[in-house]
Amino acid sequence: MTHTITAMLDTHPGEPVADKQALAECIDACLRCAQTCTACADACLSEDMVADLRACIRLNADCADICSTTASVLSRQTGGDATVVTAIVQACAAACRACGDECGTHAEMHEHCRVCAEACRACEEACNRLLAALA
Amino acid sequence: MTHTITAMLDTHPGEPVADKQALAECIDACLRCAQTCTACADACLSEDMVADLRACIRLNADCADICSTTASVLSRQTGGDATVVTAIVQACAAACRACGDECGTHAEMHEHCRVCAEACRACEEACNRLLAALA
Amino acid sequence: MTHTITAMLDTHPGEPVADKQALAECIDACLRCAQTCTACADACLSEDMVADLRACIRLNADCADICSTTASVLSRQTGGDATVVTAIVQACAAACRACGDECGTHAEMHEHCRVCAEACRACEEACNRLLAALA
Amino acid sequence: MTHTITAMLDTHPGEPVADKQALAECIDACLRCAQTCTACADACLSEDMVADLRACIRLNADCADICSTTASVLSRQTGGDATVVTAIVQACAAACRACGDECGTHAEMHEHCRVCAEACRACEEACNRLLAALA
Repeated sequence: MTHTITAMLDTHPGEPVADKQALAECIDACLRCAQTCTACADACLSEDMVADLRACIRLNADCADICSTTASVLSRQTGGDATVVTAIVQACAAACRACGDECGTHAEMHEHCRVCAEACRACEEACNRLLAALA
Repeated sequence: MTHTITAMLDTHPGEPVADKQALAECIDACLRCAQTCTACADACLSEDMVADLRACIRLNADCADICSTTASVLSRQTGGDATVVTAIVQACAAACRACGDECGTHAEMHEHCRVCAEACRACEEACNRLLAALA
Repeated sequence: MTHTITAMLDTHPGEPVADKQALAECIDACLRCAQTCTACADACLSEDMVADLRACIRLNADCADICSTTASVLSRQTGGDATVVTAIVQACAAACRACGDECGTHAEMHEHCRVCAEACRACEEACNRLLAALA
Repeated sequence: MTHTITAMLDTHPGEPVADKQALAECIDACLRCAQTCTACADACLSEDMVADLRACIRLNADCADICSTTASVLSRQTGGDATVVTAIVQACAAACRACGDECGTHAEMHEHCRVCAEACRACEEACNRLLAALA
């Protein structure tokens, strides 16, 4: 996916809002994390022990919504507001941390939570790298 | 809309994450602002002077995405993370402020920008009231 | 909410894609249904009998996503494609029917499902009225 | 991205709603197309000739919203409704066709439209393959 994201950054008539590689990696990580969280919420819902996975399902849903919105905001380079961009990336890092922590607690029991915890960690790190590049 | 939102909060088996009225008013304001921003971006796109409205269209798009996600996160009461909820409401207040400021600068020329600036202001205030209630 | 939606349709420089009242009512119903479905999925998740509400939670999630996207598409009047608009409103009517049917089966046990079934029915009808106006 | 999507399908406790490869490829194509369309709308907005790109920006916005929702619906395997799944994938194919056709008409002038037309074509095809697998 990073290849297509970079192609779109390269062909944009304007300047990217941050280092192109940090930007492309963060968009890619957000989309990946959003998909993984949506799938993990649904997999948790199908588990016999769904009643023990309520917090995981909730955090997955929030994280998916926030990652998806962050990917959209970061895909735009025209006339944005730096405060808004920073605030949504910070919210995304917070969502990925909370969801990754929760998924991590039952990663040994549910393989989908293990994969999801990894996607959350990767996205949290990509957000933090982008925040450093935006500063 | 607030009536239906309140009905859903009243019938939820769990406790709301904040004062019910502040919560319902913020969800309502977010949905209203998201719709208005999507419509304003599209109305700006149809204006003869679209080339002068680029920043407005961009901020409308970001604000619509962030408001919509914030409404979804706030519509959930089960097992969430306070840091995540606060961060997304802060991002929403920032998006509404930036978009409301921009729309406000040409509210006298474009009636859709005037209506949109009002929706953004109302949503920014609802977010700030909710942040106070969450603290 | 319909008041603000109508204000945005009235101030748009272009022509609405369909009868203004049918359009405004459908956008309003979609936003209301999206919020109610997100809240109902979360309320079901908090119920003791969550394991019996899996289908409801899933259909709520799909319906919320589809209603939200339909509201966005219908909020745009500039240069759209009639086939796309019709297809998304048809998908929305289908999602509302499936979710309303499912929520309706346990409306007597869960008040949130009763409120949600009503929102789904209202949105399905608004979609069908708009489809007739678009034809 | 397909690797992570497949990992989530493989670790889901339930059965996928369709052939796993067709499903994973369609989810991947939807996410890629959504990102590309969001970026293309923004790149068009920055072009000097933005006034000639209104239809493209509008179709990009609709296509991004519909692709994103389709990716979410397809990422769920628990207790869904076949009519809803089919209807949203059909709407997605229609959106990708309309947007791909429009971007295709100025692909020689704007490289971002060329990349976007390709992503739309690929997503339309992935939707059609999935529809055949669902039938």
